[in-house]
Amino acid sequence: MPSETPQPSFVLVRPQMGENIGASARAMWNFGLDRMRIVAPRDGWPNPKAVAMASGAGRLLDEAVLSETTADAIGDAAFVLATTARQRGMTKPVYSPERAMQLAAERIAAGERVAVLFGPERAGLENDDIARANGIINVPVNPEFASLNLAQCVLLLAYEWRRAQGAVRHEAVELAGADWAEAIEIEKLGDHYEERLDTAGFFYPETKAEGMKLNLRNLWSRMPLTRADVQMLHGVMRQMVRWKERGD
Amino acid sequence: MPSETPQPSFVLVRPQMGENIGASARAMWNFGLDRMRIVAPRDGWPNPKAVAMASGAGRLLDEAVLSETTADAIGDAAFVLATTARQRGMTKPVYSPERAMQLAAERIAAGERVAVLFGPERAGLENDDIARANGIINVPVNPEFASLNLAQCVLLLAYEWRRAQGAVRHEAVELAGADWAEAIEIEKLGDHYEERLDTAGFFYPETKAEGMKLNLRNLWSRMPLTRADVQMLHGVMRQMVRWKERGD
Repeated sequence: MPSETPQPSFVLVRPQMGENIGASARAMWNFGLDRMRIVAPRDGWPNPKAVAMASGAGRLLDEAVLSETTADAIGDAAFVLATTARQRGMTKPVYSPERAMQLAAERIAAGERVAVLFGPERAGLENDDIARANGIINVPVNPEFASLNLAQCVLLLAYEWRRAQGAVRHEAVELAGADWAEAIEIEKLGDHYEERLDTAGFFYPETKAEGMKLNLRNLWSRMPLTRADVQMLHGVMRQMVRWKERGD
Repeated sequence: MPSETPQPSFVLVRPQMGENIGASARAMWNFGLDRMRIVAPRDGWPNPKAVAMASGAGRLLDEAVLSETTADAIGDAAFVLATTARQRGMTKPVYSPERAMQLAAERIAAGERVAVLFGPERAGLENDDIARANGIINVPVNPEFASLNLAQCVLLLAYEWRRAQGAVRHEAVELAGADWAEAIEIEKLGDHYEERLDTAGFFYPETKAEGMKLNLRNLWSRMPLTRADVQMLHGVMRQMVRWKERGD
């Protein structure tokens, strides 16, 4: 069964190679989409090459809705977007993938059904398909080299769908068992290094000693150190002292 | 010749199948990136399968910079990002692809070199590679099905790079004007500490030595170190050695 999560349908229009259908299924499922529709696949259906390529996302192929025409495939959708590489001279809003998936998310949140059309590998969508869409999605490829394949185009739109969910955290720090050192710990680390380096004759000549100490303090406090880092840095210094004291 | 456009290098680390190298070249060039670096490709170089797959983007392969180790490949970079699918238990900032490419754009606008690491198809990057990065990029895939292949991962980052070009925030970079250390300098700092601490008997017991070395590398690469910081840290260690050798 397709997931309950409200989401757009991705409609592959007259896809040619089974491999690309399978790869598109994987691309969708990588970003949590599982409602595929297929219009008039060139090599019939089911397609063993699609199944082989879809490994892990084969369920999407089993559950894919087949139809004869684009019009049939999008019959229930209130908002239809068509991906194209070229301008078509049709008066129609053109959206970036990001904006398109934000709009899709808004429509879906409002209870509407949304479909995204993807054209066949070589030729792309026909004007007849595009005429049925409410808007066009234009992927901002390099004008000197626009060679996205079907599954890549599906991948980018699926990725933007997931981003539009707001579920994407932009920044985090991996905190597996580590926590940040507190200022007092950084202070003590600074004391430790300063004391030992003083003994070792690091702060020389004396006219520069204050500046050097300040720079070293500033270095420790500027670094994003965890408690474990601080322990390691203490350990480094202790070891050098022990080594010296062993005198071997 | 690679384009003059300032941009990150994309570094494929130990890639396995030539097809994936070729597809990665196409994915890059689709979004205007043309600086590829390759570390120890499994099947040698040049690779006819890579060339066949890259059609239209073959120039990137001709111009790709080959190296033996990840450290060599990123030596000139002041900001290194590593793409990973899994959490690694290393304390390191984790960025979304969008945020990562915004940061890359900011660094590059400030005149720094940036490298993005991509791991081999099956296993992904090793902890040893990741320890050399300043941050991690995590693609927000479906936790039930995380199966992005190499070229797809390259595609998404290249796409986000292109998006970041339209949206580079021109606010001041933190510590604007700072003279950031390059990866080769961080690498040498790591070498210096590792060598001296080894002599001093720090990496003990032997069963823990590898893990301790990795943690120490990770610490240096995670820190936002300037050239002056690196010089001071070298000085700290040199002084401890000198002190020991003086034997007073």
